[in-house]
Amino acid sequence: MRNIKLTISYDGTGYSGWQFQNNGRSIQQEIEETIEKVFKEKRRVMGASRTDAGVHAKAQSANVKLSAPVPIDRIPAALNAALPASIAIVKAEIVPASFDAQHKAKSKRYRYYVVNSIHKDPFGDRYAWRMPYPLSVPAMKKEAKALIGKHDFKSFQASDTRERASVRTIYKLEVKKKGDTITFDIEANAFLYNMVRNIVGTLIDVGRGYLPAGSTEKILALKDRKKAGPTAPARGLFLIEVKY
Amino acid sequence: MRNIKLTISYDGTGYSGWQFQNNGRSIQQEIEETIEKVFKEKRRVMGASRTDAGVHAKAQSANVKLSAPVPIDRIPAALNAALPASIAIVKAEIVPASFDAQHKAKSKRYRYYVVNSIHKDPFGDRYAWRMPYPLSVPAMKKEAKALIGKHDFKSFQASDTRERASVRTIYKLEVKKKGDTITFDIEANAFLYNMVRNIVGTLIDVGRGYLPAGSTEKILALKDRKKAGPTAPARGLFLIEVKY
Repeated sequence: MRNIKLTISYDGTGYSGWQFQNNGRSIQQEIEETIEKVFKEKRRVMGASRTDAGVHAKAQSANVKLSAPVPIDRIPAALNAALPASIAIVKAEIVPASFDAQHKAKSKRYRYYVVNSIHKDPFGDRYAWRMPYPLSVPAMKKEAKALIGKHDFKSFQASDTRERASVRTIYKLEVKKKGDTITFDIEANAFLYNMVRNIVGTLIDVGRGYLPAGSTEKILALKDRKKAGPTAPARGLFLIEVKY
Repeated sequence: MRNIKLTISYDGTGYSGWQFQNNGRSIQQEIEETIEKVFKEKRRVMGASRTDAGVHAKAQSANVKLSAPVPIDRIPAALNAALPASIAIVKAEIVPASFDAQHKAKSKRYRYYVVNSIHKDPFGDRYAWRMPYPLSVPAMKKEAKALIGKHDFKSFQASDTRERASVRTIYKLEVKKKGDTITFDIEANAFLYNMVRNIVGTLIDVGRGYLPAGSTEKILALKDRKKAGPTAPARGLFLIEVKY
């Protein structure tokens, strides 16, 4: 049986997230059901990242074990034809039996889009958090720096989760503005539940002037979710890359 | 009572089109119901173009008569807050009582997007017709030229409609390629039902080599829908501008 790595792109709008949920269709479910339909094999597809409800992916990674003797380069087209338009298999590769998309990931890269505009936009608003208020990009850049490195990110973890260890390492956290689009590029060895969206929500509070200089360092030290900013909405978040 | 011109942008995915239909929600219905909810007035909103199910608009024009004494520049935000995310009022202007968005339009401009790629894309495919086959842009440009001007477009009219007069004037029909995106920009005094999508479908048949040089001129002369190409899917079509 071959171990196959899949690179997957999806528009997460309307889905309950990557992982099976009782309250809606998940990306994982769509792919597993499609594999069963196309290859007549009931298999578990393990994703690198359990993206949350409404979060998108340019390149999620997953692996699946398959017996079907179909040529590897035919797999994307075979699955894509049967998958919904909102999910695409970008690539399929044969990997060693030991490869595990979830546990072997070295780092993950996410991008969050904020559109700093008063203008409602039916096309752009689908994939971004639109902010009609003035935002200081220099202030956000400055506060972002304090989050880079190895820290206990307990303050940025969803309050309803109970992960034992909340220390993670952020390798990169870049804030850029181009036109009225502000992007937050974050790479870390791993992320806590809602961590990216809580960091973005906090930096937006900095940009609006609600939080003063030095806030992110203080928030980290307090290890209390209530001290950080709001959770940015899912629709602006994209999983960009999983590195191995 | 003021006569108000609205400029409206919408993502037509999932809607039954601009106009009321029995088989689904229409854009017109969403706007009329929102006006009734926000201003407590039951009014007809007349659109310049009856865009079909699934067709999008960057700038549809419409007019509505309103008694509400709300400042004109407050109307977009008031309606936008109550409309779905997929519909935005871009602008509201007071116009003379005689202004009628539908009958006073001098020309309309549409753009159709084709993505010439083998790669399924959950984001781009939502707003374009993806064509995995090689397409000759020079051949499409050449055949497009024969459609410019005043012609009887009966061959490009949906076969299930019975409009008496099918003569229309195309002012502009440009085919451009940038990266793997091919755009068709069409401006005409007015359009028959499905006319843009039938022209695009025919030009794509030209691009694929199914129809030889000289085809569009012949198809026009035959005045027979069956001689033209297929109807391009709605999702690639955008109403760009209505000129008065």
